[in-house]
Amino acid sequence: MKSREQNIRNWIKEHKDLGIKLLQRLVQEDSTRGNENKAQAIIIEKCRQLGMELDIWELGEVKLINNEYFCCDRKDFSGNPNVVALLKGTGGGKSIILNGHIDVVPEGDRNDWKDDPYSGNIKDGKLYGRGSTDMKGGTVSLLLALEAIIALNIKVKGDIIFQSVIEEESGGAGTLSAALRGYRADGAIIPEPTNMKLFPKQQGSMWFRITVKGKSAHGGTRYEGVNAVEKAIKVVTALQQLEKRRNERILDPLYKNIPIPIPINIGKVNSGSWPSSVPDVAIIEGRMGVAPNETMKNAEKEMEECLFSLKEIDSWFSEYPPAIEWFGGRWLPGDLEQDHELMKIIRNSYIQVINKEPVIEASPWGTDGGILSVVGNTPVVIFGPGKTEAAHEANEYIELEEMIRAAEIIALVIINWCEADNSST
Amino acid sequence: MKSREQNIRNWIKEHKDLGIKLLQRLVQEDSTRGNENKAQAIIIEKCRQLGMELDIWELGEVKLINNEYFCCDRKDFSGNPNVVALLKGTGGGKSIILNGHIDVVPEGDRNDWKDDPYSGNIKDGKLYGRGSTDMKGGTVSLLLALEAIIALNIKVKGDIIFQSVIEEESGGAGTLSAALRGYRADGAIIPEPTNMKLFPKQQGSMWFRITVKGKSAHGGTRYEGVNAVEKAIKVVTALQQLEKRRNERILDPLYKNIPIPIPINIGKVNSGSWPSSVPDVAIIEGRMGVAPNETMKNAEKEMEECLFSLKEIDSWFSEYPPAIEWFGGRWLPGDLEQDHELMKIIRNSYIQVINKEPVIEASPWGTDGGILSVVGNTPVVIFGPGKTEAAHEANEYIELEEMIRAAEIIALVIINWCEADNSST
Repeated sequence: MKSREQNIRNWIKEHKDLGIKLLQRLVQEDSTRGNENKAQAIIIEKCRQLGMELDIWELGEVKLINNEYFCCDRKDFSGNPNVVALLKGTGGGKSIILNGHIDVVPEGDRNDWKDDPYSGNIKDGKLYGRGSTDMKGGTVSLLLALEAIIALNIKVKGDIIFQSVIEEESGGAGTLSAALRGYRADGAIIPEPTNMKLFPKQQGSMWFRITVKGKSAHGGTRYEGVNAVEKAIKVVTALQQLEKRRNERILDPLYKNIPIPIPINIGKVNSGSWPSSVPDVAIIEGRMGVAPNETMKNAEKEMEECLFSLKEIDSWFSEYPPAIEWFGGRWLPGDLEQDHELMKIIRNSYIQVINKEPVIEASPWGTDGGILSVVGNTPVVIFGPGKTEAAHEANEYIELEEMIRAAEIIALVIINWCEADNSST
Repeated sequence: MKSREQNIRNWIKEHKDLGIKLLQRLVQEDSTRGNENKAQAIIIEKCRQLGMELDIWELGEVKLINNEYFCCDRKDFSGNPNVVALLKGTGGGKSIILNGHIDVVPEGDRNDWKDDPYSGNIKDGKLYGRGSTDMKGGTVSLLLALEAIIALNIKVKGDIIFQSVIEEESGGAGTLSAALRGYRADGAIIPEPTNMKLFPKQQGSMWFRITVKGKSAHGGTRYEGVNAVEKAIKVVTALQQLEKRRNERILDPLYKNIPIPIPINIGKVNSGSWPSSVPDVAIIEGRMGVAPNETMKNAEKEMEECLFSLKEIDSWFSEYPPAIEWFGGRWLPGDLEQDHELMKIIRNSYIQVINKEPVIEASPWGTDGGILSVVGNTPVVIFGPGKTEAAHEANEYIELEEMIRAAEIIALVIINWCEADNSST
């Protein structure tokens, strides 16, 4: 056994360039929403080479659209499929889902990037580009772990279900579709960029859109109007105070190192169409964090009450209360017990590779883990390479050695969780 | 003389439906920037019917583009001409420019409009629609005054130069082009919606764009980034304080009824592209008022210093100072002495029609009057029908009777200023 584990780790170290090259190709394909197909094509090609059984489908099925957890403003899924690749076990072992999302968030202001956002440039052991850390790096860790196991001809008893899904950044319709298609397992790893920490619990989150009314007027007599920007500033201030109140209640020790366990992020503000006019409407969009032990409904209610109470500080809001929509992305919170068997196996594999105790925390962000655990009834641990702070940022990067270490750990988890079948080796 | 003036007034009253119908047709043509041609076609048709000598040209000439007062981000003027119509005097009298702009600002949020923004609907003596008050109503007052004089076969000694220009709402390139083409006169009236007040002085104004930097991050770990919206709020607050300081200095009694003589209007705020990301940049656009006795340069300097000093309240701005551009619209301030002969004649005509003293104030907004007086070397009074507070607003309207009264007054001004030629009548 020990030597098999060593063989796996050696194989991965010796073939790490395969993974690095794969990551570079994946990052060089801009797979922002609606453009996922070229990166998925690379994944499909890789899984075919590995001899895995492929299931490729476009989202949009009736049972997805009608599902209570479907919340997605995308109208067209054609040409940008979900991909699942199955490595059938020899039977009798625990199955595992290895889930990564292929979609990436937009690159933001290109001027903030030193290189092209999709360069895939490598410098000082880091690979740069949108999606490198969130989470094409994690996906490559999964594929490199699988490739090692397949190359060394190691058979496992449980099924290995690799998933490359779309729409994680916009509410999880990809993972939801996979769960509704019947994919579930005895455990799952999602290698989001946890900086190699183990996250048995995950913050949920959901998007909101707040419409704030003003009254238009000529800018030269702006006192005849009501500036929607000024009113929006009051809304933003109230949301900042709400965030503070909500976070003061979070006492779970898993969050002790997280400055803001469940943030309210102001992601977009748009108001006005003419410099010389007083804007009559402002739209604020953002993301509200939901605690692992909280319901989405409760969080919604708290924000709605916060907006409702604004009329107490400004009578304008009595006549024109801010309107809220819960649109687009929704990520269910996840809440796995810390001593679950999957946690133990990941911890042991981690110690074997890294030679120290892993950090166990609650995740500061939502992932597809919530849907996978609630809808797919699958215990999920979030664990992967890459710094959370590099995700969604300009000059996003991943440390390549960390990605290789993660591949080693995941490979060990697979053969221990799914149980290597010695009779077949 | 008296009876001729009475004849003119009677003619206008009897033919007021001509003016109302003309206004309705003009309002029903959306003449927002880039779409001015259909409304201009109506003006051209009217001036042809009146037997005036037409000069129709597209902007874009080298001397316009190179002029120091040209500030315009429009790339394409083709198909949307300036129109000038000349009624040649019999000689020896003072000339007059009658200037109206045909462009209108965008309609804003259509949901705020009771009817279609371009309906031209008439209800209770008011005609509704974008541009009705700013300033197609004023333009109709000019044309109705001219039509009365022409219909009654009254000859005047001075030239009458009617102008229907584009681009007033975006920096005055239309009036600048007309001035550079050689159009100037001994006096000018611009019937912007002054609510029938006389404005010998006008606030200047100019557009600004402020770029505020943040640092992007994943919304779930928003504390790793710096939200550009939060920084933009500090910029807006500083601009509010600057506006207060600048207005406290305005002591001109002409401004005594104006709550904010030289406002700083926040017209647009745009930040962020993704609800789950921390925005790394915010763009604020607006309009800064310039006092009649102030230079544009001085106003620019004051705002630039205000932004520069933000680093004292937030060290973020030391590293990332807000960047300012003075783009698009610029309207020179205007400053005519209150006892100018043109002011006297307008005042007398006003009293003759309205039977009371006119209100004389300084305008709270910039107009093409600044360019006409500085570049065209022409004394300008701003006087016209329509409520300023209705301009740039949803449900913009004009009181039709006021438009007719303005036509009567302007007709009397023309025959008195340009001097009716009794030998030719």
